[in-house]
Amino acid sequence: MSTKVDLKEKLSLFTEHYTPKIVADFNDCEVRIVKIKGPFVWHSHEDTDELFMVIDGELVMEFRDRVERLSPGEFIVIPKGVEHRPNSPEECSVMFLARSGTRNTGQHETELTAKNLERL
Amino acid sequence: MSTKVDLKEKLSLFTEHYTPKIVADFNDCEVRIVKIKGPFVWHSHEDTDELFMVIDGELVMEFRDRVERLSPGEFIVIPKGVEHRPNSPEECSVMFLARSGTRNTGQHETELTAKNLERL
Repeated sequence: MSTKVDLKEKLSLFTEHYTPKIVADFNDCEVRIVKIKGPFVWHSHEDTDELFMVIDGELVMEFRDRVERLSPGEFIVIPKGVEHRPNSPEECSVMFLARSGTRNTGQHETELTAKNLERL
Repeated sequence: MSTKVDLKEKLSLFTEHYTPKIVADFNDCEVRIVKIKGPFVWHSHEDTDELFMVIDGELVMEFRDRVERLSPGEFIVIPKGVEHRPNSPEECSVMFLARSGTRNTGQHETELTAKNLERL
């Protein structure tokens, strides 16, 4: 069964930063949403690309050699293995896709590692 | 290499309806954009889900048992095997994901079948 997902409505259901929620499944991937603010952990994912689509605010995505700044209506695909760090000074909300079960902190386990992701 | 994609900028580059363009790759999928107007072909995809995200206008997606109407900021995942038909009376622009090489008309080959998709 396929029903539409209203991203702003889903984003209104929580306030925490760096606590991803699952809002849909797509093939072998999860569609997640997350609120970003401040520096996350430098990390990469060995077995999945990640697609980030900005819903609200400005996404500042740091790479080892540069920074990308994305506004609503813009997206970026981060290839597997590429180190990155979300680091938006102001709150930003994004939808993102990655293979199901992907650890948000990549190769690291830290206090920011999200477990047992909630479904909204 | 990962660079951001501005969907409105990409959508400004063409005017045709039902002529999907590839704007990025994500794992084994293509990220495509398309302008929709009027009834498409009833079809399904046996080997891929499809994720439609509305960028501009209203997406009217018909299913055999109902109709979903989506606005910007809303998306829908159509599971593999589920028959559907885009049918927006007014022009609508969407981003969508499906496995790379997926035929836009599913199991049918018609005059609306897109071949040799352009990359923007």
